[in-house]
Amino acid sequence: MEEFALIRHLTDRPPGRRTAAETHLVVGIGDDAAVTELTPGMQLVLSCDTMVQDVHFNSKTMSMYDIGWKAMASNVSDMAAMGAVPRNALVALTVPASVPADRLRELYAGLYACADRYGVALAGGDTTSTPGGLTVTVTVTGEVEPGRALLRSAARPGDAVFVTGWPGRSAAGLHALLAAGARPEAAADEPIPEEAFPPPVRGLVAAHRRPEPSVAAGRRLLAGGAAPALNDISDGLSSEAWEIAEASGCGLLLREADIPVAPELKAYADAVGASALEWILTGGEDYVLLGTLPEEAMAVTAEAFAAEGLPFFRIGTATSAFAGVRLVGIDGEERPVAKSGYNHFG
Amino acid sequence: MEEFALIRHLTDRPPGRRTAAETHLVVGIGDDAAVTELTPGMQLVLSCDTMVQDVHFNSKTMSMYDIGWKAMASNVSDMAAMGAVPRNALVALTVPASVPADRLRELYAGLYACADRYGVALAGGDTTSTPGGLTVTVTVTGEVEPGRALLRSAARPGDAVFVTGWPGRSAAGLHALLAAGARPEAAADEPIPEEAFPPPVRGLVAAHRRPEPSVAAGRRLLAGGAAPALNDISDGLSSEAWEIAEASGCGLLLREADIPVAPELKAYADAVGASALEWILTGGEDYVLLGTLPEEAMAVTAEAFAAEGLPFFRIGTATSAFAGVRLVGIDGEERPVAKSGYNHFG
Repeated sequence: MEEFALIRHLTDRPPGRRTAAETHLVVGIGDDAAVTELTPGMQLVLSCDTMVQDVHFNSKTMSMYDIGWKAMASNVSDMAAMGAVPRNALVALTVPASVPADRLRELYAGLYACADRYGVALAGGDTTSTPGGLTVTVTVTGEVEPGRALLRSAARPGDAVFVTGWPGRSAAGLHALLAAGARPEAAADEPIPEEAFPPPVRGLVAAHRRPEPSVAAGRRLLAGGAAPALNDISDGLSSEAWEIAEASGCGLLLREADIPVAPELKAYADAVGASALEWILTGGEDYVLLGTLPEEAMAVTAEAFAAEGLPFFRIGTATSAFAGVRLVGIDGEERPVAKSGYNHFG
Repeated sequence: MEEFALIRHLTDRPPGRRTAAETHLVVGIGDDAAVTELTPGMQLVLSCDTMVQDVHFNSKTMSMYDIGWKAMASNVSDMAAMGAVPRNALVALTVPASVPADRLRELYAGLYACADRYGVALAGGDTTSTPGGLTVTVTVTGEVEPGRALLRSAARPGDAVFVTGWPGRSAAGLHALLAAGARPEAAADEPIPEEAFPPPVRGLVAAHRRPEPSVAAGRRLLAGGAAPALNDISDGLSSEAWEIAEASGCGLLLREADIPVAPELKAYADAVGASALEWILTGGEDYVLLGTLPEEAMAVTAEAFAAEGLPFFRIGTATSAFAGVRLVGIDGEERPVAKSGYNHFG
C-alpha cells in the first residue's frame, strides 16, 4: 500500500498552492479529520455521490482525469440544486491493485481541477484497496442562507417550469463514446480520444466527461427570492420532473416545442437515427437545473439570467389537473411521460 | 434497482421516530442535499472512512448489522480523536446484486443504532449497484470549539503518553473469528454466531464487530484545556504513535509494563499461543485514544477521567532524544517499534 503515501502527498498541497477556498481550512488533510469554518449565520448543506467502475464509467468512456472531474461535478451540482455555495469536499476511493499510482495522480488532477473551478477545498478522504473495481465517493459540504435552500417540494399549480441549459448532451456524448468503443480499431482499456470525433460531437463527449454544474444559476434563483422548486438533471428530465411533481403534490405539463435542443445534439441524433427527445427525457448527468417559479417571477428571472449570460428556458407549467408528468408533443398530442430515468450502460 | 426505493424508505424515519440529533436537520434525506445547523460559534469537523468487503470484513467475520455499526463507529471515532462532537452522517453504499433488500435493512439497523448511540443524525447518502463487493463509505460531520481541535502535532518532549482504554481486543476478536471460520463445521457465508465463543472471548469478538468510539474521552481531554496531542487507534498502537511522533517532530518512549492489557485479551493470547503485545501494537480498530499531555496536566486529567468512570493509563513519555517510537520491554531492554500498522486480513 506504499502508493497511498503518494496520495497523501498528492492531496497535501504546499501553502503557496493553496486556493482561496483552501484558506478557510483550519486543519486540512493529514489529521483524523479536517476542521473548517462555516460563514456565520449560514446553514450547512451536505451531499454525497458515488461513481462505480463499469456502472457509471468504463475504461473507454472516461479517462482518470474525467472520472475525478465528474465525481466532483456531480456533488457540486447537488449544491447548485439547493441554491447553495459549495465549500469543501472529502474523497473516498477504493482502488484495485491494477491501478498504478500515476493514474491516481490523473484522477486527483481532475478532482482538483473541478474543485478549483467551483471554489471547493479538498478537505480529506480515505483511500482503500479493493478486490473489486474503482469507486469514487465524493462528499461535498456547502452553505446556504438560513431557510432559503431550494427544495423539490416548492412547486405550486400555475408555476412555470424552466430549465437552465440544454439537457441530453451528455447522453448523446455517451452514445458516441460507446459507438466508437465498439469499433474493432478501438484500443482496449484506453479512453477514446476526443480528437477521434468531429468538433460538434467532441462537445457532446466533453459534456459527458466533464460536465459543468450550474452553481451560478442556483445562486441566481435563490437570490431572486421567489422560492423556486429546483432539481439538478442527474437522471434525465423525466425522472427529475417526476421528483418535483411527487414532492410537491402537483403535475408538470411540459411542451416539447419549448424544450431546448442543442443544435449539435439535434445534428448527432439525426445522423445516427436516434431521438434527441429520448436522450433529453431519459439521459442524465447534464447537471442543468430543472425547476418551477411563480408566473409573476418569470420575466424578472429571465432578465436576470440574460444579464449574467446564463441560459434559461420556459418548458411548461405546473398543474393541479393531474399528478406526475405529461408532455404536449410537437403534434399537439398530450401524453404521459414515464418516470424511468437514466439506466447508465450497465 | 427497485430495492433502492426501499432504502429511501428505510432511511426516512417518520417524525415520531426522530431522535434529538435529527431535530437539527432542516432538510433531511430525500432532496438533492441535506441542510443542517451548525451551533453558532463552533467550527465544522469533517471526515470519511470506507469499509470494503474482503478487505475490512467478510461474510463470516461480520453480520450486516455489524458492518453498519462499525462503518459509523470508525467515523465517530475520528470525531472523538479531534475532541469534536459528532453531528451528522452521510452513507454511500455500493451494493452487489446478490445482496437482498432485507440484508440492507440489517445494515441500516446497525448504522442507525450506532448513530443513535452517539447522537448522530443520518442526513443523506447514495446507494449504487456494483459488479464488485459491498463497500460502505460514511462521512461524518461534527463540531468543535474554535481553534481547540486536538491535533496529532501537539506532542512536546517531556509530555506524558496515555491511552484511554485497553487496545488489542479487536485484533484478538478477529483472530478468534478467523479461527472459528476456518473450522470445517463453520457455515459458509454466514457470520459466526457470538454464542459459539465462551463469554470472555465473546467480549473480544464484540469489540471487533461493534467497537465503541471514545467521544466522551475526547471531549474530556478538550475540556481540560491542556491541548493534548490525540489520535484514535484505528491502525494499531505503533502506527498511531508513529503518526504523533512524526507530526510533532519528537519521539515517543513507551513502557511495556505500563500498557494496559485486558485480562480476557491476556487469557485468550495465552490460550492460543499468541502475543497480546503484538495485537496491541499492530492490531487496530479498537478506537481507544492515544495521546500526550504536559506532565503537569496528568494528575488532574486522571482524576477527571476517574470521576467520569473513563479509563486512562499513562504508558510512556515524549522525548527529544530520538524521532519515532521506542519501547522499554518488561526485560528492561529498549528497542525500536516498527511503524507497521494493521494489515486487515486481506
